[in-house]
Amino acid sequence: MTKPLRIGVAGLGVVGTSLARLLHRQANALAMRAEGPVVLAAYSARSPRPERPEIAAARFWGDAVELAAKADVDVFVELIGGAGGVALAAVKAALGRGLPVVTANKAMLAAHGLELAALSEAHGAPLFYEAAVGGGIPVIKTLRESLAGNAIRRVSGILNGTCNYILSKMETERLPFDVCLAEAQRHGYAEADPTFDVGGFDTAHKLAILASLAFGSKIDAEAVSVEGIESITLDDLVAADELGYRIKLLGVAERTAHGVEQRVHPTMVGKGAPLAQTMGVLNAVSIDGDAVGELTLVGPGAGGDATASAVAADLVDVARGVRLPVFGRPAALLSDADRVPMQRHEGGYYVRLTVVDRPGAMGAIAARFGDRMISLEAIMQKRATKEWAEAGVVPVVLMTHGTTEASIRDALARTLEEGVVREKPQVIRIERDGV
Amino acid sequence: MTKPLRIGVAGLGVVGTSLARLLHRQANALAMRAEGPVVLAAYSARSPRPERPEIAAARFWGDAVELAAKADVDVFVELIGGAGGVALAAVKAALGRGLPVVTANKAMLAAHGLELAALSEAHGAPLFYEAAVGGGIPVIKTLRESLAGNAIRRVSGILNGTCNYILSKMETERLPFDVCLAEAQRHGYAEADPTFDVGGFDTAHKLAILASLAFGSKIDAEAVSVEGIESITLDDLVAADELGYRIKLLGVAERTAHGVEQRVHPTMVGKGAPLAQTMGVLNAVSIDGDAVGELTLVGPGAGGDATASAVAADLVDVARGVRLPVFGRPAALLSDADRVPMQRHEGGYYVRLTVVDRPGAMGAIAARFGDRMISLEAIMQKRATKEWAEAGVVPVVLMTHGTTEASIRDALARTLEEGVVREKPQVIRIERDGV
Repeated sequence: MTKPLRIGVAGLGVVGTSLARLLHRQANALAMRAEGPVVLAAYSARSPRPERPEIAAARFWGDAVELAAKADVDVFVELIGGAGGVALAAVKAALGRGLPVVTANKAMLAAHGLELAALSEAHGAPLFYEAAVGGGIPVIKTLRESLAGNAIRRVSGILNGTCNYILSKMETERLPFDVCLAEAQRHGYAEADPTFDVGGFDTAHKLAILASLAFGSKIDAEAVSVEGIESITLDDLVAADELGYRIKLLGVAERTAHGVEQRVHPTMVGKGAPLAQTMGVLNAVSIDGDAVGELTLVGPGAGGDATASAVAADLVDVARGVRLPVFGRPAALLSDADRVPMQRHEGGYYVRLTVVDRPGAMGAIAARFGDRMISLEAIMQKRATKEWAEAGVVPVVLMTHGTTEASIRDALARTLEEGVVREKPQVIRIERDGV
Repeated sequence: MTKPLRIGVAGLGVVGTSLARLLHRQANALAMRAEGPVVLAAYSARSPRPERPEIAAARFWGDAVELAAKADVDVFVELIGGAGGVALAAVKAALGRGLPVVTANKAMLAAHGLELAALSEAHGAPLFYEAAVGGGIPVIKTLRESLAGNAIRRVSGILNGTCNYILSKMETERLPFDVCLAEAQRHGYAEADPTFDVGGFDTAHKLAILASLAFGSKIDAEAVSVEGIESITLDDLVAADELGYRIKLLGVAERTAHGVEQRVHPTMVGKGAPLAQTMGVLNAVSIDGDAVGELTLVGPGAGGDATASAVAADLVDVARGVRLPVFGRPAALLSDADRVPMQRHEGGYYVRLTVVDRPGAMGAIAARFGDRMISLEAIMQKRATKEWAEAGVVPVVLMTHGTTEASIRDALARTLEEGVVREKPQVIRIERDGV
């Protein structure tokens, strides 16, 4: 109960300062769980922060890589961020000297996870990253430990709070995308350049991590098909609502007949599903295992304190000597990730079309869908507004039964060619059950 | 990667046979995660089961205690059930010889958990019990490991699938309790004698385990106030629905000004809360930690495969040499559980009264509530049916703002004394936020 765990933290941003405060506040409880004191011994940042009492006793390093390589610590915590650069160099330096590493850096894991896993094994230095996916939600531990006896069939999740905030606000307040994005920026939920979030790339990084853990494959960000939420309109959200769905940006990794699909896209989710009920900045992950069935974890996916909670749990595991292969099995036993083309995806589709208002137009569309053996579950044509009527078009929503992405894309290309449809059709995939 | 983990399983009921099948089916994946084969080496049951291929190679023992005491195994799995008797004797025998134990037995832990924790520590034999609460939901690991950096403020959960099935069916199909209980029995969700489930006792055992883990206190089943769902009527469910609530049997352990409350009772939960959206036989647990905020885990709370999934995860932890204090901290450091009398509970209340239909009756009731400084948030009086009218009474529902249980009970006792109310009033506690 006496040997302290000396921590070196690189990066004192929102998460780093929350972590320092947590270690201070929970010192007694952590000491009990870690079987010894957990002490902030060193940190790196742009400048020293002697004014903070919870940091005062720690040694300042101006350079994160130097801290990782030389500081007299027992574990290195990387909270700098970024796929490469200083973060990657520092983590490699720490692992290279056999130092356990805790990180919240999903971009780095998505880009260099396999290399880091090999380095971790070569030097017997564990790498923990609970905070990298789902913030405070213990999804990494659940996949890596709690579901060890399961063959995973699907992992699907709302992994980006910014997108979920925007979509929730658009739906509940009937506001357009731009207004909700600006609101998210005002609250600090979205960056000035929101592309990384709303384009689906952050979700893709997190999904790549979950897919590797769930399916025992090499982490492969290139295997993820990515679509963002920028094209989602209020019309889509209203139509989804009327049809009994919500639109969520999901990351889905799923075993199919063609291999494991990894995809990020706006998704129609039935309102009864737990993921549909996850609103605002919350994150949620549903995991379908052959023994456990469907398990859903919901909680705060970001924020300093929630993320620090996940880092602290990893630190206690480090203190207790927990050793686990980075992606659940030795790196040499990870399979190559499947790269299933999105064209082969099978499922139902929501399609919103701007149809030319003339006799036979709907018949032509129906014929093109029929040619590809796509059967329709629902057709919804609303009375056109004045603007629509003046433009000579009507908005039409189609819901299809199960088909392939290739068939849908082909049918839609033909309707555009034939001139019965104007503008790019909106296409949103439907997840039927269990998400 | 070569040393096998030899398992001895006591009890080949639904969970035991599911576990044997899982170990067989997932042999390769488990060997990878456990860093060696996981082998069913011995079992006890009423009679040998040589016909099952996944059991054929295991040695049969007619006596579970003898297996625990003598079998040449590396871990003992107790799946017999029951608070004492053979299960307890076998677990003690195993721990006593330093053998790690995995159990799904919540009744045993609730009654003898502290003694077993001390035995576990004395002999350096870990005791795992993920399957004891929430079936396949990893709530034990989440509390014992993932939230190590949090001060827990509240744990609340739907911990009994039978009760949730009955309440969900009553609400959605507008059927009375007896009909839904019979249906639950027909599906095998409820025992012939349903008291243990519908009386709230099973939930209380599970809550006692969660409370000990969450608040670092000695497990104390006597500290739990217990009410079942037998008194819930269709009228209550309909009124709840109209008021924006669902009625759920919750187990709640919560830090209050008077100490940590542990209580099991039917509860009005706002429809927007994750626990309200958990329907049918599913279980759900919400945990409120000071760093993480609110975390909710939803999944199958029972069933052979889901429970076996949790047991298998514990077995992999055993194989990997994980050692944790049974209730998260050494037994000597567990505090005494608070025994907060239910009379001191503070919160909002739903009260359904059978009011005598005469001038001044409602005024008398309002006066008695006013005397106790109870302010009302809503009053709902429906037009009486013919039966009610003939009996000269009207049904009235009151929703109160925050008050104490003592005040409510006192006010209701007075209205009964004054003869303005007939029959025992229905009283259901309201959980305002975060459940």
